[in-house]
Amino acid sequence: MGGDHGPSAIIPAAAIALKARPHLRFRIFGDQTKILPQLAAHPELRDVTEIIHTDVHISNDEKPSVALRKGRQSSMRLAIDDVSEGRTQCVISAGNTGALMATAKLVLRCLPGVDRPAIATVLPSIRGRTVTLDLGANISCDAENLVQFAMLGTCFARTVLGVEQPTVGILNIGSEDKKGHETLHDAAEILQNISFPGKYIGFVEGNDITTGDVDVIVTDGFTGNVALKTAEGVGKFISQVLKDEFGGSLLGKLGYLIASGAMKRAKNRMDPRVYNGALFLGLSQVCIKSHGSADAFAFSRAILVGADMVQNRFNDMVGEQIQKLTADVNYVTMPIPAPMDING
Amino acid sequence: MGGDHGPSAIIPAAAIALKARPHLRFRIFGDQTKILPQLAAHPELRDVTEIIHTDVHISNDEKPSVALRKGRQSSMRLAIDDVSEGRTQCVISAGNTGALMATAKLVLRCLPGVDRPAIATVLPSIRGRTVTLDLGANISCDAENLVQFAMLGTCFARTVLGVEQPTVGILNIGSEDKKGHETLHDAAEILQNISFPGKYIGFVEGNDITTGDVDVIVTDGFTGNVALKTAEGVGKFISQVLKDEFGGSLLGKLGYLIASGAMKRAKNRMDPRVYNGALFLGLSQVCIKSHGSADAFAFSRAILVGADMVQNRFNDMVGEQIQKLTADVNYVTMPIPAPMDING
Repeated sequence: MGGDHGPSAIIPAAAIALKARPHLRFRIFGDQTKILPQLAAHPELRDVTEIIHTDVHISNDEKPSVALRKGRQSSMRLAIDDVSEGRTQCVISAGNTGALMATAKLVLRCLPGVDRPAIATVLPSIRGRTVTLDLGANISCDAENLVQFAMLGTCFARTVLGVEQPTVGILNIGSEDKKGHETLHDAAEILQNISFPGKYIGFVEGNDITTGDVDVIVTDGFTGNVALKTAEGVGKFISQVLKDEFGGSLLGKLGYLIASGAMKRAKNRMDPRVYNGALFLGLSQVCIKSHGSADAFAFSRAILVGADMVQNRFNDMVGEQIQKLTADVNYVTMPIPAPMDING
Repeated sequence: MGGDHGPSAIIPAAAIALKARPHLRFRIFGDQTKILPQLAAHPELRDVTEIIHTDVHISNDEKPSVALRKGRQSSMRLAIDDVSEGRTQCVISAGNTGALMATAKLVLRCLPGVDRPAIATVLPSIRGRTVTLDLGANISCDAENLVQFAMLGTCFARTVLGVEQPTVGILNIGSEDKKGHETLHDAAEILQNISFPGKYIGFVEGNDITTGDVDVIVTDGFTGNVALKTAEGVGKFISQVLKDEFGGSLLGKLGYLIASGAMKRAKNRMDPRVYNGALFLGLSQVCIKSHGSADAFAFSRAILVGADMVQNRFNDMVGEQIQKLTADVNYVTMPIPAPMDING
């Protein structure tokens, strides 16, 4: 029931996802009087879908605390309960982000060894794609949180983006070792000294989010949120200026028309919908928050990302990695005994 | 001697600035064997310019501490000494940012009442321009620092951008009162309760840097630096994608050619060179750091911004404001006596 379009985007999205992955099965939570008419247009989807009807849904301006208290029969809560109880393997929602995170944290809890879930997203870049996390779940983070985020991002890049050995950087204000907060230095030291399926390359800067020189960028939720929204803002600004100027003159319109193929290819390369969704990484089950404004195509991408995470065993890989990390970090931080004075 | 181009950009830049403001006078610090040939091409500029020759200059990879110790005869240090000793009213450099900030802080010191200088810049937005500060001088800031930055940004928007009552926002991860770090809440409370020549509008988000809905955005140097570099990165990414796609096909090239007027207008609107320069606000004298890559046009803009700040008495306005602020904040934070119980 979430997002700007509700079932009118979500049902067609499921139909698109089903076409791409015919083995998918759906359980759809919400008002059946709104879901059924949409489903009627997609008979193949209807055959593999169960509707779990409820009249209650969490609105977009509901506070997370209120959603938790009063929303036990809401479509959002029932969907999360469903994955928690093992009937489904992945939950996807376009609803209220804060409520979804709070409910998912409460019901699903973190994977063993993960202290806090992080919100991640995949952004297009000059060369490929970059995973950035955290984007707002944790406004303050210690070094261990950041290292755990690095593991989550690495596993995501491997299982969903198909990068064999993802490169990992910590977001900072310069690449020199002494730049930035002490927490970042501590996290860097840990990442330099552990073995994990990615490769730590050092501090990176804001512009590296779009250069594509690094696969995974780790940051606290405050900085990540500001960076993400700044990037979105600049994208909107440039697209608005191009629209104004091309649309404002006859030659501009003509040029646009002639170059429309190029413009379309450019738009596709920059399309943030391709990996639509904020990924809640670190929970015991796969949970994906689609953009509220997602259309059917965008929401179908969120479904496919979730399907990839389940199929490629994202959570198993994270679990292993975190276990290994805990052992490694204990080793690294163990005090080194002073050398014996053999001449003594 | 600073920047990628040295005198070959800086001398023509001074000539451009002089044409725009014929009352300007220049003192140029550096190697006269490199300056004189450039100056020969600009006789009007030569007539109003003194060269202060020195062989020493701070390179771009010099550490600030080394620049301070060993650079007493460098062009950068001599130029800053000159403004400190009252022979010039404003210093502009395209050199090493860290060295310039460290030297300017040491020699010029802060305006009375300002605890730390901030680095500010002016970015183009959908509606007008936005001043953002701090961009890296102070990685951790308390509420009073942020409030002082708000005063600096307000005075800059008034004196250089000509905005009568600039709107001011604090960069956060949401507009609700409870979002983000406590420091931000404390700064917001102070800004809500003082009178100043701007208007505090509350928390803003990363995308507001480019919407133009707010004139001044206040943040700590870590967050500001990440946001600025993210914005630059997205700009480069989009321009690269457009170049690839338009240049990659005949129709793309043709369309680009026909719409070249529109494309040029779009580029002009987004041109970050128009207010080129990182402004070191809060020092006792006006000091401007031009981008190292600045060409003659960009460097001329940095000169004109400096000239505007001097002519419109930026520092006097800040001084007054900070004095008033100190009085106001003392008032705000004074404990309010409990009301007397008149029924005793």
